[in-house]
Amino acid sequence: MPYPQGVTARRPPAARSSAPAELELIERIRLRAVATRTRELRLGIGDDCAVLRPHPGEEIVVTTDLSLAGRHFRMDWHPPEAVGHRTLARGLSDLAAMGARPVAAFLSLGLPRELVEKHTGRPRKTWIDRFLDGFLALADATGTPLAGGDLAESTVFAADIVLLGAVRRGKALLRSAARPGDLLYVTGSLGGAAFGLQRLAEWRRASAGSAEVSNIPRSRAAELGRHLYPQPRLAQGEALVRRSLATAGLDISDGLSTDLAHLCEESRVAAEVDAQAIPIASGATLEQALHGGEDYELLFTARASARVPQAIDDVPVTRIGRILRRDRRRPQMTLLTAQGPEPLLARGWQHFSQPIHDVRR
Amino acid sequence: MPYPQGVTARRPPAARSSAPAELELIERIRLRAVATRTRELRLGIGDDCAVLRPHPGEEIVVTTDLSLAGRHFRMDWHPPEAVGHRTLARGLSDLAAMGARPVAAFLSLGLPRELVEKHTGRPRKTWIDRFLDGFLALADATGTPLAGGDLAESTVFAADIVLLGAVRRGKALLRSAARPGDLLYVTGSLGGAAFGLQRLAEWRRASAGSAEVSNIPRSRAAELGRHLYPQPRLAQGEALVRRSLATAGLDISDGLSTDLAHLCEESRVAAEVDAQAIPIASGATLEQALHGGEDYELLFTARASARVPQAIDDVPVTRIGRILRRDRRRPQMTLLTAQGPEPLLARGWQHFSQPIHDVRR
Repeated sequence: MPYPQGVTARRPPAARSSAPAELELIERIRLRAVATRTRELRLGIGDDCAVLRPHPGEEIVVTTDLSLAGRHFRMDWHPPEAVGHRTLARGLSDLAAMGARPVAAFLSLGLPRELVEKHTGRPRKTWIDRFLDGFLALADATGTPLAGGDLAESTVFAADIVLLGAVRRGKALLRSAARPGDLLYVTGSLGGAAFGLQRLAEWRRASAGSAEVSNIPRSRAAELGRHLYPQPRLAQGEALVRRSLATAGLDISDGLSTDLAHLCEESRVAAEVDAQAIPIASGATLEQALHGGEDYELLFTARASARVPQAIDDVPVTRIGRILRRDRRRPQMTLLTAQGPEPLLARGWQHFSQPIHDVRR
Repeated sequence: MPYPQGVTARRPPAARSSAPAELELIERIRLRAVATRTRELRLGIGDDCAVLRPHPGEEIVVTTDLSLAGRHFRMDWHPPEAVGHRTLARGLSDLAAMGARPVAAFLSLGLPRELVEKHTGRPRKTWIDRFLDGFLALADATGTPLAGGDLAESTVFAADIVLLGAVRRGKALLRSAARPGDLLYVTGSLGGAAFGLQRLAEWRRASAGSAEVSNIPRSRAAELGRHLYPQPRLAQGEALVRRSLATAGLDISDGLSTDLAHLCEESRVAAEVDAQAIPIASGATLEQALHGGEDYELLFTARASARVPQAIDDVPVTRIGRILRRDRRRPQMTLLTAQGPEPLLARGWQHFSQPIHDVRR
C-alpha cells in the first residue's frame, strides 16, 4: 500500500537492493552508530526499540530538545557540522545540568529531500552527511552512542534529540534544592555564544551571497566558536555530583537571567548577582553575559561551607552571587552594580519568539 | 537577548504573569501530565531532565517516532484527537512489540501558531487542546505518564514521540531470534487501518469543504476506527514475554509483507504465509491485509511445541505461516494461495514516499 511511513533508521529489507540516497543514509547512520555500542546499550538501531541495561544503584535521566531550521539556526548562516554539533550539545548540556553521564542518544530527523541528495562544498558531501559529521564527532568525544531514531521527509529541517543519562540514585542535581544562604556559581564564561551569533550575523549579512555558508575561515573560528560549537560541561556536572559540592543546578541555555529565574522559581527563593563578578566571555558585553542564551555553562548553588574549587577539569568556576529568602518587598532577582542594587529581569527567554530571520534587524 | 529558544515544557518564571496562549498551553500540559506520576518516574516535567528509577532486574527499552502533518496525517482529514491518539499509539506499539510495559512518554511539538491560538469546532477548544485530549486519553488508558518534552513554533506541525518501557532483563522480544521450524502468528486482524484510510479519503473528498474535519459521525466511527484510533497490543506483548511463548516479534506498522521481511532479514530466515489463514479485518481486502500499514498488530514466532492460545486478553491470535531456512533457490517470503505458492514481495513500506496528499489519486 502506498501509504506514507516515517522511515525508521533500521536496515532496509534485502529486496530493495537498488537503494536510493535516503536508504544509503539510513545504512550509513547505522554503520556509524554501531561503532559506539557500550555495555549498557544492549541493542541499538535495528529493532522496534533500543534496549538499555541500567547499572544497579543508578537512575536514568531523560531530556528531549527540538531544533528547527529558521528558528534555532539558519540554513544560510550555519555550517551543517555546527548544526549537528549544536543539536547534540543542547541535549548533552541538560545531562550535565543533572550531573549525569551520557548513556544513549536518539535522533529523529525531518529532512527536506535536497539535504539528502544535493552535494555541498568541499569535500563533496551532502548537507546531512556533514550534519552527521558534526553530530557524531561530539558523540564520539563524549562517549554517547547513537542508539536509534526516526527519519521522515519534511518541508523544513527538524531534529529532535533525545538523550538518556545515568546518575547515582538520588544524586541528580535538581533546580528545586537551592536554599537561602547558598552561594551561586557559574562555570566558564558567559555571553560568548551571544557575541558569536552577533558576529556571525554581521559577517553573513556583509558577505550575503558571496561567502560559502559551509566554510568558516580560520580567522573567524575563535569569535564564532562559542556560538557554533558550544561545549557541554559534562565533566563539571559529574564532578559536582561525585564530590557532593552542589545543592542545586541547571544549565544556562536561556540566558543567566532567565535560568536563574527558573532556579529561584523551582526552589522558591530569591537571588542576588554581583555584576562585577560575572565572568564575561572575550568580546562579549555584560548585557550578553546576563541575557544571552546558549552558553551551556552550568549555574549551581553550594552551601557557604562547601569547598568549591576555582576550576574543575580546567574550566573556571566563579562565584557570582548568593541565594536569599523570598521576600515580597524585594525583586526575585537583584543585580548588584557599581551604581547600587537594581532589579534583574528575566530577559533571556523568548518563547514562541520571532524566527532567527527576524532577529537583530 | 531576543534569541529564539525552543520552549521547554516547564513552568514559566513568575515574572511573566500575563501569560500568552502558548505559556498557558505549557502550564496546561504540565498540570495534566503531573496527574499521572508513578513510583518509577521520580521527577517529570520541570527540570532539565526527567528522572526515572528502573526496577531492579529490568531493562529499559526506548523508541522514537516522528509524525508530520501532510505526511503521516492530513490537517483537513484527521480530527485532532485522532492525531494525538495515533502519535502515542505508534510509540506504544513499539513497546508492545518488545513485550515491554510503558514507563514514560516524552513529546516534542513543532507547532504552527494558529493551532495554539485558533479555536475549532465544538466544544470551543484549540486544535492542540484537542490533540492533547486524544493523546492523554490513550496515555491514561495505558498508564503512560507524560514526563517531558519540548515545544517550538514551526511552519508545519511536527510531533516526535519518545517512549520508555521496561521489560524483564534479557526477555525483550527481538526481531532477530526467529528460527526455521518456528510457526508464525499475528494478533487481531489485518488491513483495517488501510481500509479505514481508504474510506476516510473517499468521504473527505466527497464532502470537501462541507463536513467539519473535527467531527466523525457515529455512523462512520466503526469503519474509520482502525485507522483513526488503533489499539497498541500492550497486554498481548507483555503476555508473550511473561509466558515465554514467543521466540521473536515485532509490530505491523509498515504492513505485514514489509514487517515480515524485516523479521526474515534480522533473523536470517525465510518465511511462508498461508493467504487463507490471514485474519482480514471487516471490509478490508487481502491486498490491504498483506501490505496495509498501521494496523499495529503483533507479528511473532513461536516454537512448534509452544502452546499458543487462540486469544490473549480477548484479542484473537492466529497462526498464519511458518519460518523456513534461508535458501537461494526460493524467495525470502512465499505466499501460499489457492492457485499455488507465489513470491511475497515487501510492498508495505514507502520510505521518503509521496506525502499523504498525493496518495490514492
